[in-house]
Amino acid sequence: MRTVTKDNITEIFSAYFGPETDPRVRELMLGLAQHIHDFARETSLTHDEWRKGLEFLEWAGRITTPERNEFVLLSDVLGLSSLVDMMHSAPDSTSSSVLGPFHVSNPPELALGGDLKGDFEGEVLLVNGTIRGVDGDPIPGAKLDIWQTAPNGLYSSQDPDQDIHSFHGLMTADENGRYTFTTVRPVSYTVPDDGPVGEILRAAGRHPWRPSHLHYIASAEGYKTLVTEVFPDDDPYLNEDTVFGVRDDLVMTYVPQEAGTFPQGYELSGTVKDAYSRVDFDLILSHA
Amino acid sequence: MRTVTKDNITEIFSAYFGPETDPRVRELMLGLAQHIHDFARETSLTHDEWRKGLEFLEWAGRITTPERNEFVLLSDVLGLSSLVDMMHSAPDSTSSSVLGPFHVSNPPELALGGDLKGDFEGEVLLVNGTIRGVDGDPIPGAKLDIWQTAPNGLYSSQDPDQDIHSFHGLMTADENGRYTFTTVRPVSYTVPDDGPVGEILRAAGRHPWRPSHLHYIASAEGYKTLVTEVFPDDDPYLNEDTVFGVRDDLVMTYVPQEAGTFPQGYELSGTVKDAYSRVDFDLILSHA
Repeated sequence: MRTVTKDNITEIFSAYFGPETDPRVRELMLGLAQHIHDFARETSLTHDEWRKGLEFLEWAGRITTPERNEFVLLSDVLGLSSLVDMMHSAPDSTSSSVLGPFHVSNPPELALGGDLKGDFEGEVLLVNGTIRGVDGDPIPGAKLDIWQTAPNGLYSSQDPDQDIHSFHGLMTADENGRYTFTTVRPVSYTVPDDGPVGEILRAAGRHPWRPSHLHYIASAEGYKTLVTEVFPDDDPYLNEDTVFGVRDDLVMTYVPQEAGTFPQGYELSGTVKDAYSRVDFDLILSHA
Repeated sequence: MRTVTKDNITEIFSAYFGPETDPRVRELMLGLAQHIHDFARETSLTHDEWRKGLEFLEWAGRITTPERNEFVLLSDVLGLSSLVDMMHSAPDSTSSSVLGPFHVSNPPELALGGDLKGDFEGEVLLVNGTIRGVDGDPIPGAKLDIWQTAPNGLYSSQDPDQDIHSFHGLMTADENGRYTFTTVRPVSYTVPDDGPVGEILRAAGRHPWRPSHLHYIASAEGYKTLVTEVFPDDDPYLNEDTVFGVRDDLVMTYVPQEAGTFPQGYELSGTVKDAYSRVDFDLILSHA
């Protein structure tokens, strides 16, 4: 009889695969079992701890809805989401960063020079950039899906007081690959910490904050779609993003601009009399 | 600025812990992150695979109820449940084995010599044994919580046609630590394979079968509670239990007994005229 022991269980697990198993499925499942078994053996995981882990997953399942995915959040705070992003980021393109759970499908069109802030109060931020290929040539008509928090730190899907498309827009770059729009400065915010992931963060003595950022998905025919974020260089959480999303090339200066200098050609032109800030962020897409 | 890369993300994860973090929490969380990161790096886990993994967890969450816990089943088929059992099984006691998800709380009392099979048809199985300490002395009044499948392969919690306490009983050993009862032979059965865990088993070319067994929880004042199972040595799935629960010392022979030899002193005495089987299984408990 084949006796299962704590030392041979991984080997027995590997012997259970059928002969027709897809090699990649086998590699992933065996790798996962090996690491889970090693984790349990190295830490001498107890029944109580194992049970708490299962209860954690059940709680995550109960709290997960189409609007709030606790498993994605778990992957985010463990660094897994960022790791997968970094492993598959094309080396010559702009770095990718986490998608996060707050992207809304079918965002409304945002015209070049359009405004995202609507009726919300706050210092105006003018955002500019060019979407290029790795050869440096602009990509005319590239699409840029843009979203961010409202000044209260909430995304539209978290906030019953916002329209679902608030602070979401889909821009088409001009013939020179240029995009530009106005908004208010995004703010630092906490990931949802009233569920099991919040418990983990507290147990680890970690805060739930993310540095402020704009989210982008840039796409164009013939290029790899880029999911990324852009961070201001003066955010207090830049070095301790709880979801590990910050990359060097995604950190930009928001440059203060004097009152009365707001340019023509924007939806807000003529209405912005005060000081504002400006950030320039070019995006480099690699070939598909 | 602290730049997160695929190579330093585990180190940065470890730097996020607060100074007051419980050392065991730190050990478990860091060990888990290290193994998850290594798994992702070694397999070069893609976005699509990562997303499928998250969708798997969401599906497991949706399908989990108080009666059906897909996360426990996942732990079972990955071998984690058995591994945790084996790591903490006292070396001088009877081996422990998986509790499984089908135990029912507050089982009805089962008198010595009582019967579990009730109105169900099938060959009678007479079960005997003594519950002892590691020193060999019987433990008078030890408690034995017993449960098993009905002849249709279903536990009471899976089968609307069974009373919830069908094939469940709580016996108190006599002054010599002896327990004995009648039932029908348990049958081999499949774990629930209509959910995400079933998908995993099919993808791996694995079957969902468990060899037949009786479940026991033995407990007594001053002793460590033992969760275990007893398997017949002629079960076709003995060497390939899909949840890795079989241990050498839990495999017993069900010995055929001639018709007309059924003993006195049982609830079924006088009613069993046919051949039946008998299994003897002593349980050794270690000191608490």
